[in-house]
Amino acid sequence: MYPKPIQQLLELFSQFPTIGPRTAGRMVFYLLKSKGNSFDEFLKALKNLREQMKLCAFCFNPFNSGVELCAVCKDPMRDKSILCVVEKEEDLATLEQTKTFQGLYFILGGTVGNLRKEDLQNLRTEELKARIEHPETFGVQASFQEIILALNPTTEGEATALYLERELKYAKVKLTRLGRGLPIGGELEYADAETLRQSLENRR
Amino acid sequence: MYPKPIQQLLELFSQFPTIGPRTAGRMVFYLLKSKGNSFDEFLKALKNLREQMKLCAFCFNPFNSGVELCAVCKDPMRDKSILCVVEKEEDLATLEQTKTFQGLYFILGGTVGNLRKEDLQNLRTEELKARIEHPETFGVQASFQEIILALNPTTEGEATALYLERELKYAKVKLTRLGRGLPIGGELEYADAETLRQSLENRR
Repeated sequence: MYPKPIQQLLELFSQFPTIGPRTAGRMVFYLLKSKGNSFDEFLKALKNLREQMKLCAFCFNPFNSGVELCAVCKDPMRDKSILCVVEKEEDLATLEQTKTFQGLYFILGGTVGNLRKEDLQNLRTEELKARIEHPETFGVQASFQEIILALNPTTEGEATALYLERELKYAKVKLTRLGRGLPIGGELEYADAETLRQSLENRR
Repeated sequence: MYPKPIQQLLELFSQFPTIGPRTAGRMVFYLLKSKGNSFDEFLKALKNLREQMKLCAFCFNPFNSGVELCAVCKDPMRDKSILCVVEKEEDLATLEQTKTFQGLYFILGGTVGNLRKEDLQNLRTEELKARIEHPETFGVQASFQEIILALNPTTEGEATALYLERELKYAKVKLTRLGRGLPIGGELEYADAETLRQSLENRR
């Protein structure tokens, strides 16, 4: 056991995603060794995050200007008939960088590998339904014709998409997924069977 | 690019050991999603670390009680004739948990894979020499007969041990290393050739 201040911070760092106790320890010792100024800079950055960032009332994307909505949701030029559901903030940023998608987003907050109640609680399923039914309540004038379930093509992503398809069936809105096939630069020789099968099916 | 408060903290997290930009992003978004209380708890733990922890004047181990020395260095029962040089705080904690070693420690602060000047600066070589020559200056009445270079049996650890052996030759003190061989629970079938060679040499 380390002294209490070390142990406490180590345990908090261990709760961060993908951080185990070993990495958490390295992080604490890194902070301990860092000079006063860089420690203060770190504390300041944390406080800025705490004070300046809000979650968008509609899509849950963090933002730091304006009143209620993030830059995407309040942009009058965005296509208000199509909603792209992503797992996490990073996925939204990655899609947005492509400058291809012009609709709105919704950050689901996770994926589930099974349909256990405690896992499903981590998804913003009810929030998603509310935004599809009454977008104006959340500050957005929209009428969605299509929902893209842009989840990862992994077991968890698939399970979550299937779950959402079932949950959203009542809404009578078109549900789609991202296309499948060979990635650019990918080599046929090394592609897995399922990707190849889908690339044959979706041939263009 | 993310909003500035996110980007700033993401870059600071990326500087932590073993943390890449992707993990750094996850950490920032985890903090953003965490409720006010747990964010405050995290900030408090950081402040406690900043305010309460000092580095031991002799061995550089972090501690939070007493005046100058950590619990090991100020313990009158410890063997003041043997000094164990370790790479990092975690190594000291791991050795200490075995309750086998009764001497003092010194945290070197890293290892080097080559002898470039900028890499060698990260090692506390001069601090180590000063503590071997004049331990009393750092609050410890000691006279070291043996220095154990307890570094990892890796390329970096080996290179660092060889470097220290050369640097400490003048001190006319016995320099040793940790024993080599099969680890408990290890299987001969899966041991690498070098470990086997050393386990044959060091047979008991």
